[in-house]
Amino acid sequence: MAGNDPEPLLSQRPSSELSNDRDVAEEDALLTGQRTRKKAMGKRGLGFWREVGLVAWAVLATAAVVILAVLYENGKGENDHGKNPKPKGKRNLIFMVSDGMGPTSLSLTRSFRQFSVGLPWSDTLVIDKHLIGQSRTRSTNSLVTDSAAGATAFSCGLKSYNGAISVLPSHKPCGTVLEAAKKAGYMTGLVVTTRITDATPACFAAHVNTRAEEDRIAEQMVGDYPLGRVVDLMMGGGRCHFLPNSTEGSCRNDDRDIVASAKDKGFTYVEDRAGFDGLKVGAAVNLPLLGLFAPTDIPYEVDRRNEDDIYPSLDEMARTAMKALSEATRGSDKGFFLMIEGSRIDHAGHANDPVAQVHEVLAYDKAFASVLQFLDNDSTPGVMVSTSDHETGGLATARQLHESYPDYLWYPSVLANASASAERLAHNYHENLSASPKPTKKEKETYLSDVLETHLGIKDVLDTEIALLIDRPEIAAYTFADIVSRRAQTGWSTHGHSAADVNIFSSDRDVARQLQGNHENTEVGVFLREYLDVDVEAVTRELRQKGTGVASAAGEEQEMYEWIGPIPDDGERLDGQDHMDHYQGDQKKYKRCGICGH
Amino acid sequence: MAGNDPEPLLSQRPSSELSNDRDVAEEDALLTGQRTRKKAMGKRGLGFWREVGLVAWAVLATAAVVILAVLYENGKGENDHGKNPKPKGKRNLIFMVSDGMGPTSLSLTRSFRQFSVGLPWSDTLVIDKHLIGQSRTRSTNSLVTDSAAGATAFSCGLKSYNGAISVLPSHKPCGTVLEAAKKAGYMTGLVVTTRITDATPACFAAHVNTRAEEDRIAEQMVGDYPLGRVVDLMMGGGRCHFLPNSTEGSCRNDDRDIVASAKDKGFTYVEDRAGFDGLKVGAAVNLPLLGLFAPTDIPYEVDRRNEDDIYPSLDEMARTAMKALSEATRGSDKGFFLMIEGSRIDHAGHANDPVAQVHEVLAYDKAFASVLQFLDNDSTPGVMVSTSDHETGGLATARQLHESYPDYLWYPSVLANASASAERLAHNYHENLSASPKPTKKEKETYLSDVLETHLGIKDVLDTEIALLIDRPEIAAYTFADIVSRRAQTGWSTHGHSAADVNIFSSDRDVARQLQGNHENTEVGVFLREYLDVDVEAVTRELRQKGTGVASAAGEEQEMYEWIGPIPDDGERLDGQDHMDHYQGDQKKYKRCGICGH
Repeated sequence: MAGNDPEPLLSQRPSSELSNDRDVAEEDALLTGQRTRKKAMGKRGLGFWREVGLVAWAVLATAAVVILAVLYENGKGENDHGKNPKPKGKRNLIFMVSDGMGPTSLSLTRSFRQFSVGLPWSDTLVIDKHLIGQSRTRSTNSLVTDSAAGATAFSCGLKSYNGAISVLPSHKPCGTVLEAAKKAGYMTGLVVTTRITDATPACFAAHVNTRAEEDRIAEQMVGDYPLGRVVDLMMGGGRCHFLPNSTEGSCRNDDRDIVASAKDKGFTYVEDRAGFDGLKVGAAVNLPLLGLFAPTDIPYEVDRRNEDDIYPSLDEMARTAMKALSEATRGSDKGFFLMIEGSRIDHAGHANDPVAQVHEVLAYDKAFASVLQFLDNDSTPGVMVSTSDHETGGLATARQLHESYPDYLWYPSVLANASASAERLAHNYHENLSASPKPTKKEKETYLSDVLETHLGIKDVLDTEIALLIDRPEIAAYTFADIVSRRAQTGWSTHGHSAADVNIFSSDRDVARQLQGNHENTEVGVFLREYLDVDVEAVTRELRQKGTGVASAAGEEQEMYEWIGPIPDDGERLDGQDHMDHYQGDQKKYKRCGICGH
Repeated sequence: MAGNDPEPLLSQRPSSELSNDRDVAEEDALLTGQRTRKKAMGKRGLGFWREVGLVAWAVLATAAVVILAVLYENGKGENDHGKNPKPKGKRNLIFMVSDGMGPTSLSLTRSFRQFSVGLPWSDTLVIDKHLIGQSRTRSTNSLVTDSAAGATAFSCGLKSYNGAISVLPSHKPCGTVLEAAKKAGYMTGLVVTTRITDATPACFAAHVNTRAEEDRIAEQMVGDYPLGRVVDLMMGGGRCHFLPNSTEGSCRNDDRDIVASAKDKGFTYVEDRAGFDGLKVGAAVNLPLLGLFAPTDIPYEVDRRNEDDIYPSLDEMARTAMKALSEATRGSDKGFFLMIEGSRIDHAGHANDPVAQVHEVLAYDKAFASVLQFLDNDSTPGVMVSTSDHETGGLATARQLHESYPDYLWYPSVLANASASAERLAHNYHENLSASPKPTKKEKETYLSDVLETHLGIKDVLDTEIALLIDRPEIAAYTFADIVSRRAQTGWSTHGHSAADVNIFSSDRDVARQLQGNHENTEVGVFLREYLDVDVEAVTRELRQKGTGVASAAGEEQEMYEWIGPIPDDGERLDGQDHMDHYQGDQKKYKRCGICGH
């Protein structure tokens, strides 16, 4: 189409770019081989000048060819749909995972922020400016994935079953992009706000048949598996899986001391705010580093920031990791691969807690902005891709509370009045209940009314709501969240996951061009390996060769990978939710849900 | 970067593309005007051959300059971020609106289609392949828009209040892209499956203060307003607003005959399948055309296709409109602007009916594919942009039914077993109830069990569900939909709209580059006018000048635009939902919802 109107191009005399100190007449003379009118033409023969002119013409034209060819080639890459115009030399890749964050979490958080900070409605989150596409998320065994199958799609670039930690439905391990990056000479890191042994981080540096095997995952992540150590930096929670069960604060089933094992393998170990501060935001890190800042999860951001910053924030950990990995690769011809997870957006979804959720999303957005800033300032080129593994909660920014037709609105002001997560309030309430002497019913009522007003800003609590909190303290977290959700008119359809497509974002829509539009989650995994240009299949082969702990002559395939743990039974619940029973599809079997998030 | 390796480019002799049937030496000779080497070599001196070589070099290099320059220029446009590389000459614009379709509707429909047609999980809808961004949807007076404010953002490119039909919060009319297109010489069309007087189509060719004024909208749409006729083609439902209230099938409040008025203004009028067939899919259309194929809404696709195709489908109407407008603009230097709405995706959301919804989305996807095909084949360049005005229903592809923790799944098989909308089943049930003699309770039970099994494939209906249908026939449509939704484990949070961001799609992500990423809905409106290069502000001025029906000397601004209808009272419900009362934010005022879509 543009070829219809070549005027602007041909009227730009390309040769004048080469020699703009010549006047136009002279240039014309050179191009045409005719003399200029200036002087001294008489002394040489016509043949001489003709040759000079020809040589000049040929040289100029050739130079123009070279320049245009470079321009064309440079321009071409960006137009090449599906091609990845990645840097050819040293480069960094930061992969961010907003666990459980569906598209609606952003609408919720954006309006909450506009309301609470007093911003115009056109104001957006940082992440909003970087939307490039969406990802389809199903796993091999369900339309609704869990985080294990979701992260396996990212790490191995392959679909697997819910519960699988970089293991395929055949129960064979698949190589991960982090393992392949390490083998190719990249430095590697994992930063999370949940347990470092939870599904998403685990999928990058461990292989087990069921995600619940977090003890085994802890061992593998510090290097106790066929490939040895592949992670250079880990920060997050989950300390309890690294401590022997003879120690206070352990949740292991055995007395292995994984912290000691990590130290033996060369890891620097930090576990508290003082240790974190000693890292000096990455300027004083000795890799490999293992930072385990909480026994299990790091508290929700809405609680963490009210608790003297005992725990590092996602943003603090992300900046520390980027700085440390950047410093550590300064002399290398390879950069780093870092995965940063906003892990607990998902937990807020499971809890149907909109207050916890908006603050988790804002914390993620802050880390997102820091990643952009790092990429802008670092001397090594790099790209960030951000996506979710799935949506959690079936969140809706509208909720019908009564049979009367709903108004079209929801109330961010309700969320702005709250200053604690439902999880924290339930925890405090349970402590109150275990106090000695036991509180009376009247005392409980007073306590609860006070908590609701002080921490959630709720002044119109119903007697039925107080009664539910008193009668069923075991579901108090759900009840607190529901009290807020109803008033904000925030809807939820489940305490589990949903099959909604999730958004894909990038620091550079051109570099991440192959992820523009709608894609399977496995295509995100393929992008990661292609950007780094690493051989994940070779890692798969190595895992399978080295990983045959039991004599393979026996023939039993299951026994060949004993180190990835036992193969689960058919129908065994693998998605990390083993504390409740199952709906069997029979409407008559259960009474309807009184506390489901509706 | 890519310029590091120019080899492939320079090794291609560009001139050979011009004349690949000549050998290179001969070609060089022709270009230079010198003979080839085929004969008589010995006779010339070294100087001669040197010159020949120089000329050849210079000419070849010059040819390469020209070719590379053209390649570079062609490539350059697509790299121009934020710029709209629209065609310079005649062009068509097709704007598709999927009313009420949030991102999750696509996940729902895609999996339903994979299941029911037996496709692999990697199979997608056509529309999935064209995702380019998302739109934020709030209106001036709420975080949750209605279709009127939503469509005003598209038509005027400006935010307004819920209920506004191309009128601003100041209650002054704003010019629309369709009106400006008509003035610029484009042909214009509107195709919908709801009433042609409903909010979305109305916003393109009418101006009223409250969307409920559909009688007034009908008058304006056939040209009875200050600008005269601006629409060349209208197809959809809503006939009742065009018939005088002295006629059967009218829903007007007066006895004006708008069909007659349209005919007076030159419209061809068709109102049934025979009339539609006579249009020969656009080959036999005399513009202007008014096609009103149903008294109010055209039935849901899931019902329509089972009813002898009495009503044209969205795809049939879309193809007819494109063909007719293309033919009518054949001799013009201006193309056409056509708006096509999948109107009833929204209604299925309001009804919380996943069966109706998946078939509406599939019907939209079929029309979407036809638009792509038209754009591919038509000689006039054009682009299609598709988006939604808002999400409806708070749809989630997961639903927790019981207090027990939910499995991660939902059941498309339940939707595949159903063959009717809840709306149609409720209509039939109400007819059954009005039969004479009245059915007994036992007869109702039998009737309902039979309907549920035959039309919805439900064999495990609960006594409580049958009892609810019998006790409260007025909400039978909600109950039928809920019976299906529960079993499919499809979640809904409201019968109204939600504030979720909605997706943007385009036939050409480069032409629609300015809509890549996340945008306000008004930016979609700005794209439409910019692509067509029409002056919407001039239309606004004209509307305000011509539209002062009452003497402006009186000074009262409200009176200046009498033709846009009375200004609504403060707090008046304007979003087209005036049949139920309002929730006032007081938890104690209403009992909790028993039939809300949970």
